[in-house]
Amino acid sequence: MPLTRVSLLKGKSAEYRKAVLDGLYQAMRQTFGVPENDRFMLIEEYDKSNFDYDANYLGVARDDDLVIIQITVNNTRGIEQKKAFFAKIAEILSKNPGIRPENILINLLEVPKENWSFGNGVAQYSRVTLGGGEN
Amino acid sequence: MPLTRVSLLKGKSAEYRKAVLDGLYQAMRQTFGVPENDRFMLIEEYDKSNFDYDANYLGVARDDDLVIIQITVNNTRGIEQKKAFFAKIAEILSKNPGIRPENILINLLEVPKENWSFGNGVAQYSRVTLGGGEN
Amino acid sequence: MPLTRVSLLKGKSAEYRKAVLDGLYQAMRQTFGVPENDRFMLIEEYDKSNFDYDANYLGVARDDDLVIIQITVNNTRGIEQKKAFFAKIAEILSKNPGIRPENILINLLEVPKENWSFGNGVAQYSRVTLGGGEN
Repeated sequence: MPLTRVSLLKGKSAEYRKAVLDGLYQAMRQTFGVPENDRFMLIEEYDKSNFDYDANYLGVARDDDLVIIQITVNNTRGIEQKKAFFAKIAEILSKNPGIRPENILINLLEVPKENWSFGNGVAQYSRVTLGGGEN
Repeated sequence: MPLTRVSLLKGKSAEYRKAVLDGLYQAMRQTFGVPENDRFMLIEEYDKSNFDYDANYLGVARDDDLVIIQITVNNTRGIEQKKAFFAKIAEILSKNPGIRPENILINLLEVPKENWSFGNGVAQYSRVTLGGGEN
Repeated sequence: MPLTRVSLLKGKSAEYRKAVLDGLYQAMRQTFGVPENDRFMLIEEYDKSNFDYDANYLGVARDDDLVIIQITVNNTRGIEQKKAFFAKIAEILSKNPGIRPENILINLLEVPKENWSFGNGVAQYSRVTLGGGEN
């Protein structure tokens, strides 16, 4: 169910961008209980004039390799699980494609399970609302 | 009030894309109580390397005609109304422009009515909070 | 913390687009209690076929200079503060770059503070949850 929007400056290779998505998917699987193959991700590449960030907010040193990741997920996780997710994303992406952890900005948008249709005009998750699954 | 973001692969005609938007607007009008002319929709067209989806998650057969639809709406609808909305979208878009229902992925983001300004720096809906309208 | 997505038609100069972002940042600082340098903003430029709006919904006269602004913020503000924010955005952007207030559409998405990581895989705001700050 996560719907992921990755925003970064133009100029990264397809291989680099794929590694970002693969890493996000791994982090979701390992710390967020996301089901296998639940993978829907979009990348937007920006010109510099359209990608505006502060290079030092909160004392974090960012540069043009900044990746802004906004993920829409179900509202089923607590603070500790979110912290684990953020840490795992930074751990994985710092290895491959090799993004400095300072350059990883993440935001979560949360929705109830009934707010998704994964095809066929059906709200697939609303049928399992009582199941308490992690998806 | 709905603010709609449609994401799809590059290559669809302007006519096709307009049919998607027209269909979404019809579905909003018929099942979500959206006022006439309350239509604000954006389309993003992606290269394949930036449009990443699973072709079988939940047993739904998706392909490169997948359309990912994320709609920001007021938080005034219940589960049944959401289900009716998803079903109506699939019904309409499968007729025109002829999208297989499996290829329609929908997500709703919900906000309180006070979170919109439709121009002039005014929060138009916050004035009618007590009216219980469907917008 | 605000993550801002500005959507407009192609054709505006870099100077114009920068003025939009500068104005939004000023409005955040003046009415939303956003910390200095808390600035993360993305602009998407659309072809006409992908930018669909109603030119008169709610009796507001919009045209192709419409700017659609969707801002993800912490869920710490009340209605009056939101109204002040919308009004300030319209006031500032109408002066520079000179956007008619009718052409400014704003939507806020709200999240709990724990939903952000500003780098290093850390949920920076979750540490200050009890502080009641405005960020």
